[in-house]
Amino acid sequence: MAKRVYLDWNATTPLRPEARAAMVAAMDVVGNPSSVHAEGRAARALVERARAQIGAALGADGADIVFTSGATEAAALALAGRGLSGALLEHDAVRAWTDGALAVGADGRVNVPDPAHATLQLANSETGIVQDLPEGLAVSDLTQGFGKIPFAFNWLGVQMGFVSAHKLGGPKGIGALILRRGTELAAQIRGGGQEMGRRAGTENLIGIAGFGAAAEAAQRDLAGGVWDRVSEIRNILEKTLDAAADMTISVGKGAPRLPNTLCLATPGWKGETQVMQMDLAGFAVSAGSACSSGKARRSDVLGAMGFDAATAQGAIRVSLGPDVTEEDVLRFAEAWLKDYRRFKARAA
Amino acid sequence: MAKRVYLDWNATTPLRPEARAAMVAAMDVVGNPSSVHAEGRAARALVERARAQIGAALGADGADIVFTSGATEAAALALAGRGLSGALLEHDAVRAWTDGALAVGADGRVNVPDPAHATLQLANSETGIVQDLPEGLAVSDLTQGFGKIPFAFNWLGVQMGFVSAHKLGGPKGIGALILRRGTELAAQIRGGGQEMGRRAGTENLIGIAGFGAAAEAAQRDLAGGVWDRVSEIRNILEKTLDAAADMTISVGKGAPRLPNTLCLATPGWKGETQVMQMDLAGFAVSAGSACSSGKARRSDVLGAMGFDAATAQGAIRVSLGPDVTEEDVLRFAEAWLKDYRRFKARAA
Repeated sequence: MAKRVYLDWNATTPLRPEARAAMVAAMDVVGNPSSVHAEGRAARALVERARAQIGAALGADGADIVFTSGATEAAALALAGRGLSGALLEHDAVRAWTDGALAVGADGRVNVPDPAHATLQLANSETGIVQDLPEGLAVSDLTQGFGKIPFAFNWLGVQMGFVSAHKLGGPKGIGALILRRGTELAAQIRGGGQEMGRRAGTENLIGIAGFGAAAEAAQRDLAGGVWDRVSEIRNILEKTLDAAADMTISVGKGAPRLPNTLCLATPGWKGETQVMQMDLAGFAVSAGSACSSGKARRSDVLGAMGFDAATAQGAIRVSLGPDVTEEDVLRFAEAWLKDYRRFKARAA
Repeated sequence: MAKRVYLDWNATTPLRPEARAAMVAAMDVVGNPSSVHAEGRAARALVERARAQIGAALGADGADIVFTSGATEAAALALAGRGLSGALLEHDAVRAWTDGALAVGADGRVNVPDPAHATLQLANSETGIVQDLPEGLAVSDLTQGFGKIPFAFNWLGVQMGFVSAHKLGGPKGIGALILRRGTELAAQIRGGGQEMGRRAGTENLIGIAGFGAAAEAAQRDLAGGVWDRVSEIRNILEKTLDAAADMTISVGKGAPRLPNTLCLATPGWKGETQVMQMDLAGFAVSAGSACSSGKARRSDVLGAMGFDAATAQGAIRVSLGPDVTEEDVLRFAEAWLKDYRRFKARAA
């Protein structure tokens, strides 16, 4: 049996060896980072080392980094109760706290008339489309961009951003909110004085150690051009499918895009059906974001871009990572095109 | 140099080998538990297996278990905005949301006139004193009791309880809220539909796997009498110090207490000073709970019990675990008594 090919890196990534090693080492650190004794200080040192690694990878020297249980919690911390504007193509963790009023162009780009009262993602998880963040933006979801495209938090012109470890080879369940120094922020999870009073609770020591190591390795890979190669492989896949599947639209083609993401919409061929067919054929892809408890819904992202329901419902996301080879994507193309031709024959 | 002795198990515990093995195994599981493909389903199976392990260890068959980033987040989820009554001896994560109005007796026991609108901890982290939870109690902090004393959630008569993995040999950064089935609960961290809509965010897969394994191992140890032996060693330490330190009060002696906890109050000898002296001598103990970012404050717990400020400020907590030997505690007693005699000579 052929090995399975994982093409769902925007949903979550395999754990990097550097993160694994850091986590296994952290398992031997006994103390609570808030304890004043030697065991506590050793744990504290691990937390602060990881914070520095993440700050460096983000280009966020001098900014505050607050560890959270992931990007979803960080989004709540940044957005809840603030009444900011956002677009319908934001992640559900952002849409939960925003109005969905910002207009999305047919190219997937968002217009932000009042950046100080708005949130805008850096890159979309489903299409990979990258936004130009306006100067003075209140909050940005940096989750999909971090580790895949170069940016420096300090040069983005945003007040707060948030990220997640498991999108760049770290563990699930750990993320961070990044704030320009001096930003006021009331804790939502309260109790102990951890994270400078902004987020109580004993720190996820092992997860934080893994996040720090993953961020450092991700930054090294990015600087080393690893994602240029990923982009080439994605483009090979895109061209192969473009040439053979005339009913299929490659959403975001031509727009600034993440190097690893391909969003394929085939009107009338349901995304959830494609995901199941590809799963049986040995390939993991997704329809929309993974984060809605297995619900394979219509993509609101494509709807916001103006695609009709049949097209939006026919979208799948193929997202690559550095471990994916040209052979992997060509095998995927072969399997997908086989099912595509069957669909087309039935549809005809 | 003599090996250090860790006597701060109520602050956090060493990772159990079972938890470590489960976490290392989970590192190879690539998928997002919300993804529908095979990789996602494998991750989902790990989460649900851990949930079942924790439910069994808690005696919570049929109850709902919602994973959170720890007891502090679970406390916020259970308590925020509800205006419940609580005592001043609760953990800061509970005090943040409660009024501190419930009366505490000199024996550390709390009177709860209206359980349906109150919260009460099962056991105190500083003194180890165990409460009789009244039938119909709204919320209970079960964190310090879970794994150390036998109870079944389903027989406690409480509506909700919460626990943390790192107090029983699991990793830091993962906990759970347990609810009687059918309890209404609005999510605070919103976005994806994880945890039946009660807590959004990609699950902390590795942490959850560690929590499940730790809970199962903790329950096995408890049933096997491991904590009876811990209690004997704690009692040996208590008797040794009782006989030699006439200024020192063993707080909670005679009350129902956790098997591993000893709270020693020496009026005039500051707890933070004792912690630092013991740290230099090779022993990790604490003054109050660890959770206040290294602040070595006066114990509100002892204040609530009616001790004067000099006594409350003179308290340390010595908390044992299954790895602590009789030799360890006798070495601690020797070191502590040496400093105690110096303090007493200066105080005279």
